[in-house]
Amino acid sequence: MRLPLGYRYATCYAGIRQERKDDLALIVSDPAASAAAMFTTNAVRAAPVKLSEQHLRASGGKMRAVLINAGNANCATRTGERVARECCRTLARLLRAPANQILPASTGVIGAELDASLITRRLPELVAGLSEDGFERVARAIMTTDTTPKFATAEAAFRGGHIRIAGLTKGAGMIQPNMATMLAFVLTDAQMTPVELWEALTPAVEQTYHRLSVDGDTSTNDTILLAANGASGVTLPRSEQKLFRELLTRLLEDLVRKIARDGEGARRLITIEVEGALNDAAAAQIARSIANSPLVKTAVAGADANWGRILMAAGKAGVPFDPARTDIYVQGVAVCRSGVAAQFSEEEVEEKMRAPECSIRLVIRGRHRGRARFFTCDLTEDYIRINAEYRT
Amino acid sequence: MRLPLGYRYATCYAGIRQERKDDLALIVSDPAASAAAMFTTNAVRAAPVKLSEQHLRASGGKMRAVLINAGNANCATRTGERVARECCRTLARLLRAPANQILPASTGVIGAELDASLITRRLPELVAGLSEDGFERVARAIMTTDTTPKFATAEAAFRGGHIRIAGLTKGAGMIQPNMATMLAFVLTDAQMTPVELWEALTPAVEQTYHRLSVDGDTSTNDTILLAANGASGVTLPRSEQKLFRELLTRLLEDLVRKIARDGEGARRLITIEVEGALNDAAAAQIARSIANSPLVKTAVAGADANWGRILMAAGKAGVPFDPARTDIYVQGVAVCRSGVAAQFSEEEVEEKMRAPECSIRLVIRGRHRGRARFFTCDLTEDYIRINAEYRT
Repeated sequence: MRLPLGYRYATCYAGIRQERKDDLALIVSDPAASAAAMFTTNAVRAAPVKLSEQHLRASGGKMRAVLINAGNANCATRTGERVARECCRTLARLLRAPANQILPASTGVIGAELDASLITRRLPELVAGLSEDGFERVARAIMTTDTTPKFATAEAAFRGGHIRIAGLTKGAGMIQPNMATMLAFVLTDAQMTPVELWEALTPAVEQTYHRLSVDGDTSTNDTILLAANGASGVTLPRSEQKLFRELLTRLLEDLVRKIARDGEGARRLITIEVEGALNDAAAAQIARSIANSPLVKTAVAGADANWGRILMAAGKAGVPFDPARTDIYVQGVAVCRSGVAAQFSEEEVEEKMRAPECSIRLVIRGRHRGRARFFTCDLTEDYIRINAEYRT
Repeated sequence: MRLPLGYRYATCYAGIRQERKDDLALIVSDPAASAAAMFTTNAVRAAPVKLSEQHLRASGGKMRAVLINAGNANCATRTGERVARECCRTLARLLRAPANQILPASTGVIGAELDASLITRRLPELVAGLSEDGFERVARAIMTTDTTPKFATAEAAFRGGHIRIAGLTKGAGMIQPNMATMLAFVLTDAQMTPVELWEALTPAVEQTYHRLSVDGDTSTNDTILLAANGASGVTLPRSEQKLFRELLTRLLEDLVRKIARDGEGARRLITIEVEGALNDAAAAQIARSIANSPLVKTAVAGADANWGRILMAAGKAGVPFDPARTDIYVQGVAVCRSGVAAQFSEEEVEEKMRAPECSIRLVIRGRHRGRARFFTCDLTEDYIRINAEYRT
């Protein structure tokens, strides 16, 4: 795993969550990086989301560090803004950077006050401990109900030389990102402007994080950040921006699949493909409706090729299509042709559905070409157990 | 329980479902009744839904009988329309009624062919067995994953005399009616025209069945039928239509609460009230978003007053409101004031939440007056168990 140059990492246990595992993480870029970010569209937004947005605007898309805590979302809190500001200010002093180049992020319980001193008193030691090989520890420290750390790296040759991208993300529940997911941080050592980053990030997110759902809930803290510090010395000319965007999209898709696979209680990653809808947006709406149907998700949990539920979920999406021209494939097997049962062996499909990945493909035959891919997971008793007991 | 005059009922086991309990039900009106009905808005519609709609149009809103089967939805089937037509035709001959005065309805598995002969060969005995006291048996025969039959009756004095209304309904999963619920049949012996019925039905459904969700899924078979046969001899003048509408709304609300309480795997009925939204539609959208949030529903299952999730779910509804002016009450206790935690005893609220009904009230303070009420249930492991194993 080759990480992008010029980033350092540190983590520690600050006592924010009860369980004694790292809950505070710091990513620092030397030199300051260009940055672009997308945040939750939930009308209820956490204090760090609001402050990160302000900071990026004030700094003109420059960032020196990201400070992340798990265990408390710092959302719907009386002191939320003050706490986030104080943490940024303290860190800025230690790094000798402007406060508006510090981006805070939080994940965890909503509505509990966050004690700033828990964080600020650990910052000197965090900064002192910064090292180039702490990347994976950061991915671990930001986990809440996640069962595995989630990260991906890529390296590619451009005309000016090699660049590296590394992304880390977290999220297992409250996942239907709408503008971005819970938390994702993507770092590259390419030399890029904030505008170039933005032009790469938005379409890549559209194809990946906006096509992900665990439970249809949209977090108050969703943040995805893309930073480029130029430490590779490689500048990407206009002609190579498309290549970068493809690289980024593949990396984000990798992260998104990791989130879906680790969805709360999930046993299976489900990939849903819709083809032949009126347009791509209509296809995405149908795919999302299938992905969010508890009846489809429980059927997959039971390894039941219950295509009737898939058709029902497509039908309630609110976009017109002709069921009589619709075919459905589960694990590559045609289970529904022209809106009615196809000839297939239930046993064979059930056997195939016991795999860790499940593919659902819905094809509307005709002259329309709208298509979309969507990622989700099955719905098991463990989702309920985790969420009925999470806080207590 | 005083039932409306002029209706007779019969049920039998026709072998449509495997378990040996009644799965075929017949309701006959003597004389023919005026009728109004609302059907699913799912783009995938079952054959009986399409045929009932056709019949009502062709008969000018007259109906003689409703023929209902459980165990098979007759949806996404090759022979669906033919089967439904054949059943209606056979029954029409036996009742000496026009075929377009027979309304078919089906509920059960989607995508399995329904054998018409299972039904037609039992029709003579069903018709011979019609009796005025089979109402509750019909409510039982149309159950699928329901654990209790659901019905309600009402009687009221109008200027012309007493009239009675009786409603029966079924549904436990695939419930977020959008135009109507899975199956609901409401009978009255008042004398009313199809237009008068329609004018009463649509606003009553708007306040009741359209404010109900078990799992956010919309059935392919949703049907609500209101029939009036005039057997009481009581005509309702224009001035009393409003009274009838109120009576009907109360009766439908009663049925809707019964569905929510019996939601698949549910332990608790949840009533959600939203006040102070921009308008009633915005309030309903916020209430629906809370009702459909798996994180809210699992929190209620765990008797956890997790108001952060309620606020999150309100925030993702897609309608603007100010979290800082928002209060949340759970079981009448203020748990969130002005968007942050209120002072309350977690233990006290948890204790109150162990009751069979849970009330969530979200109040946005300010000058707006939009309000809505919504009914749903908690989400437990049993929902998963039922739906991962339903077909197999």
